[in-house]
Amino acid sequence: MYIGIDIGGTNIKGVLTNQDGDILYFKKIHTQKPAADIENGICSIVEQSAAKAGTKGRIKAIGIGAAGAIDKQKGMILTSANIPSWKKYPIVNAIEKRTGIRTYLENDATSAVIGEWWKGSGRNFRNWIMLTLGTGIGGGVIIDNKLYTGRSGSSMEVGHTTIDYKGRKCECGNTGCLELYASATAIVKSAKAKLKKHPASSIHKRIKNEKLTAKLLYEEAVKEDSFAKLLFDETATFLGIGISNLISIFNPEAVILAGGLSEAHRFILPVVKKVVHDRVQEGLKENIKYLVVKDQERIPALGAAKAAIEAFKAVK
Amino acid sequence: MYIGIDIGGTNIKGVLTNQDGDILYFKKIHTQKPAADIENGICSIVEQSAAKAGTKGRIKAIGIGAAGAIDKQKGMILTSANIPSWKKYPIVNAIEKRTGIRTYLENDATSAVIGEWWKGSGRNFRNWIMLTLGTGIGGGVIIDNKLYTGRSGSSMEVGHTTIDYKGRKCECGNTGCLELYASATAIVKSAKAKLKKHPASSIHKRIKNEKLTAKLLYEEAVKEDSFAKLLFDETATFLGIGISNLISIFNPEAVILAGGLSEAHRFILPVVKKVVHDRVQEGLKENIKYLVVKDQERIPALGAAKAAIEAFKAVK
Repeated sequence: MYIGIDIGGTNIKGVLTNQDGDILYFKKIHTQKPAADIENGICSIVEQSAAKAGTKGRIKAIGIGAAGAIDKQKGMILTSANIPSWKKYPIVNAIEKRTGIRTYLENDATSAVIGEWWKGSGRNFRNWIMLTLGTGIGGGVIIDNKLYTGRSGSSMEVGHTTIDYKGRKCECGNTGCLELYASATAIVKSAKAKLKKHPASSIHKRIKNEKLTAKLLYEEAVKEDSFAKLLFDETATFLGIGISNLISIFNPEAVILAGGLSEAHRFILPVVKKVVHDRVQEGLKENIKYLVVKDQERIPALGAAKAAIEAFKAVK
Repeated sequence: MYIGIDIGGTNIKGVLTNQDGDILYFKKIHTQKPAADIENGICSIVEQSAAKAGTKGRIKAIGIGAAGAIDKQKGMILTSANIPSWKKYPIVNAIEKRTGIRTYLENDATSAVIGEWWKGSGRNFRNWIMLTLGTGIGGGVIIDNKLYTGRSGSSMEVGHTTIDYKGRKCECGNTGCLELYASATAIVKSAKAKLKKHPASSIHKRIKNEKLTAKLLYEEAVKEDSFAKLLFDETATFLGIGISNLISIFNPEAVILAGGLSEAHRFILPVVKKVVHDRVQEGLKENIKYLVVKDQERIPALGAAKAAIEAFKAVK
């Protein structure tokens, strides 16, 4: 059996799975102080999984999916947007020491792609792309039914491709990066910048007691707040430009969205489809399936487990 | 033996090759009236190849690489920028009728990628991308030592990816397409638009008797004309932005340039490398090899022959 862990900004999710991807146990832990809590959270998931498995010895490996820049070989999180205090943090070493179980590190977007490829709708296609819409935008591509990772495992940094070469400045050093226009962070920023111009919006009332988040904007869009809907239109238009570029490059069968913002797919997907129709050439844009990861709670953790299964087998 | 044909705007190039890619014969034919001449030109290459081969019967198949939108299955050139009169032109059928030899059609950029993969510097890498800089910008990608073509064979339309979503309008319907900024057509357009502001440029004198072409600009840049050099700087900067996007997506080992404009690599490559350094994240931009196709005369035709070899084998 194997454990998969998905580290998010506020939650850790863990699954216990067998080699076939049957989920035997699932646990979600809320973390108050991320950096300090996460190690404890992971260890608690391991303990509870071990109880389910009968004995700890039956757990062969742990896979951890984490956002940010990682060094898979060294098992290190180099920098993390979610947990700024983690700089060159040797998470694999820390977890191996505390649990005695071999541990592997994987990028969170890649984990989600692997999970969807293994047990999600990705099983229906041989060539497809995924975009993970969260704080930033991550991605992955399955080519001929195989994960493509590039020369050094860093492919599909689609969030940092340029859609406006003289546009917004990104912390990465680049200009006009897609994620500055189409991520959850981007829609919140845009909302804050334009809120004053929309005094009738229901958002004003809500943010008296609440933080302005993409989730809040989604809830207001569902309630037909026109400003909230406008924000999703705008964000989805930018996303559509980024997806159009990927369709021109990959000529895929399917585009699959994941991440928090993709839960607003009812506002996002119709706009994305229209932009692709307007921008992409004939012969490329037809018959593409647009999907959203259904089991967002467990797929990234399951993918991290699958990554660990493959890494473990390769070492044996 | 096999014949490979590369149809350009003003020349047809043909190679006769064996299964191992040894070039037994090479012929370049200048065409005055493209549409009418090309069929005759191809047939003349076939006759001369047959003479070299001993008998026509030894030639198993012909591969044709053509620019523009093609339908490989139907053997049709749908539209061609080089030969506007070709609309849904059934070239495969026409050549098969006249020669009696099985004929296959391939995209010209794809032919160049196959040629460079088979017999060029592409042999040294498993994951690399190519950009063909001509009238437009074509491309191709080799993944895990295999040509990637996408769901319907239309992948790597990199010339029509957006680098400025509110930028120049493209005939394809999209906005801000890379090829409007970084192709041979683009540099000539930019030269014409800005020439008046550079009265001291040596270009003024030359275009009294000559057409302004990318080749002419290159020659003047070699002679240190500062306006011509400025134009290559500008064009290469845009190309660098497009290449940065592809590096972020593919994390390749090498970037290989082909096509007429790539002959100006001494002006283009240093700028492209600087842009990639400035724009692409660490972990992605290091140790990339930048190369130019050396045998531009024969590699695309050789690639078209290889495409025919594979198609012929698949049918048998």
